[in-house]
Amino acid sequence: MDIKNELQKRAEFFNHELEKFLKEEQPETLYKAARHLPLAGGKRLRPCIAMLSCESVKGDIINVIPLTIALELIHNFTLVHDDMMDSSKLRRNKPTVHMKYGEPTAIIAGDLLFTKAFESMHHTTSECSIFKNVEFGLIDCIKEICEGQQLDMEFEQRKNVTENEYLEMIRKKTAVFFQYAAEAGGILGGGTREQTNALNQYGLSMGLGFQIWDDYLDLSSDEKKLGKDIGNDIRNGKKTLIAVHCLNNAKGEDKKNLDKIFGNQNATNDEVKQVFNIFKKTGSVEYAKNTAIKHCEKAKNILTVLEDSEAKNILMCLADYVIKREN
Amino acid sequence: MDIKNELQKRAEFFNHELEKFLKEEQPETLYKAARHLPLAGGKRLRPCIAMLSCESVKGDIINVIPLTIALELIHNFTLVHDDMMDSSKLRRNKPTVHMKYGEPTAIIAGDLLFTKAFESMHHTTSECSIFKNVEFGLIDCIKEICEGQQLDMEFEQRKNVTENEYLEMIRKKTAVFFQYAAEAGGILGGGTREQTNALNQYGLSMGLGFQIWDDYLDLSSDEKKLGKDIGNDIRNGKKTLIAVHCLNNAKGEDKKNLDKIFGNQNATNDEVKQVFNIFKKTGSVEYAKNTAIKHCEKAKNILTVLEDSEAKNILMCLADYVIKREN
Repeated sequence: MDIKNELQKRAEFFNHELEKFLKEEQPETLYKAARHLPLAGGKRLRPCIAMLSCESVKGDIINVIPLTIALELIHNFTLVHDDMMDSSKLRRNKPTVHMKYGEPTAIIAGDLLFTKAFESMHHTTSECSIFKNVEFGLIDCIKEICEGQQLDMEFEQRKNVTENEYLEMIRKKTAVFFQYAAEAGGILGGGTREQTNALNQYGLSMGLGFQIWDDYLDLSSDEKKLGKDIGNDIRNGKKTLIAVHCLNNAKGEDKKNLDKIFGNQNATNDEVKQVFNIFKKTGSVEYAKNTAIKHCEKAKNILTVLEDSEAKNILMCLADYVIKREN
Repeated sequence: MDIKNELQKRAEFFNHELEKFLKEEQPETLYKAARHLPLAGGKRLRPCIAMLSCESVKGDIINVIPLTIALELIHNFTLVHDDMMDSSKLRRNKPTVHMKYGEPTAIIAGDLLFTKAFESMHHTTSECSIFKNVEFGLIDCIKEICEGQQLDMEFEQRKNVTENEYLEMIRKKTAVFFQYAAEAGGILGGGTREQTNALNQYGLSMGLGFQIWDDYLDLSSDEKKLGKDIGNDIRNGKKTLIAVHCLNNAKGEDKKNLDKIFGNQNATNDEVKQVFNIFKKTGSVEYAKNTAIKHCEKAKNILTVLEDSEAKNILMCLADYVIKREN
């Protein structure tokens, strides 16, 4: 199976629906700013997961369209606000919203995307109690995403973070949203409790694997490939699993250099490269890769309770894909 | 009737419920930042309106508690983000959230308050279809608030704004939320369509009067009285009704001085005072006061369709109160 092609098909279907939903209204600048990132493409991973989960329980994907739009808008709203907090200049190879439209408009554009996500949820045609249940799940998710984002930031200021603290942080920041996308897609698709529980656990494990792999990519890819600034994570002292492992395991000169450079805003490009070499030498890059693989393997195992179907197959491949992708 | 006392009673009841709902969780700093403004007091005008509307249709205020919390949290979320956009240092005589906790945490704290507002809505015990209807109204409101906030900002950069443009901006930025609070309070209280329509229109007119009066207070009060920075609005070229009227009506030397000083970030305190004198001389301050009074009179007239009750009486007095208050 060509997983990229399967995702692409669903992403295109989704893009069409998103374009219809996120129309340009007045004031023009605000809506341009709000549309800037969501309509700049992206993998549409969360919408795809929700659609595939729905399909895997033999649901009609028409039922999850409002959910998929909400997922993507919430994801984009967090990116708009995060990019401001991180002072990032590029995202998806384009200027970030605050760079293009200024910080005040970026704040409001993020808030508007947040609002539009809930507006989309209200287009759900499921029975009212199901709608309410699924919407409440979304609210709970966003709360955890806020908490995870704060932890991520606070960890940057800390000298040491344990692996468990790191895992709890990325669970909140990233994995709960995959978990929710998978479970809610199953619920709106009419899945049984057993099925939606499996999808829930699949999303959680896959989300953990995804974030660990994402941090790895951020460190190992060059600026052009990912469309983000390089070295920022090292200069900011961002506690990725690679960094956490290395801080807890580097010895001697390496540990000294790491403590000197990691988290130093004024580190040169050469120093950034030096830290990356220490990460590799300590085995931290390998460790993070293997941990990501472990979580995605777990995700696949959980899915075995679902009946065989094309969608189940794609979800399986997706768990492999997130730890093979290069962007 | 002592309107302040009636509002105070309801505000205290509300404060108790808010304190119960907005508990301190982890990460501590995020929740401290999120609680900072909502628990710093305030008039609780929107919750009071929702409670009084509910009472005026003989509803049990227990039914509107989740709504009142949502109203106040949304209001506070917009203040947290607005204060960042305006670089305001003080609010309710305390440092603003971004001054105390930094901009990144202030952004997330605002987002968390937004989320918690929807969490609160889910505690509504009304029938599911009513819940859905009322929640959708809230979403629609927030969308208009975002649009109004953007317009407000864009107007600062413009040389001229018509009175109608100004009214549409404050309708979105402020009045729709009063309109919603009044109508939703009536709906959750079990009011008839006629009653909730009247409450809707009452809230709209009263909200317009409130905002015009608020802008007037900002200009005429000293820093200590309002707990906000003074002169900012004049330096930023903020298009209040007073400013809009004056820009469209000042003549000769006055118009020249106005064009020179109004919107000039480096204006001295003396120049700020000079602009204030031009506002008064042109009759713009009187004009704004009279317009605020006109809207609040309209609000009171609309309420006559409601059966007589203590709550109706208080709502009537409230429409007078918003154009008499000094903070």
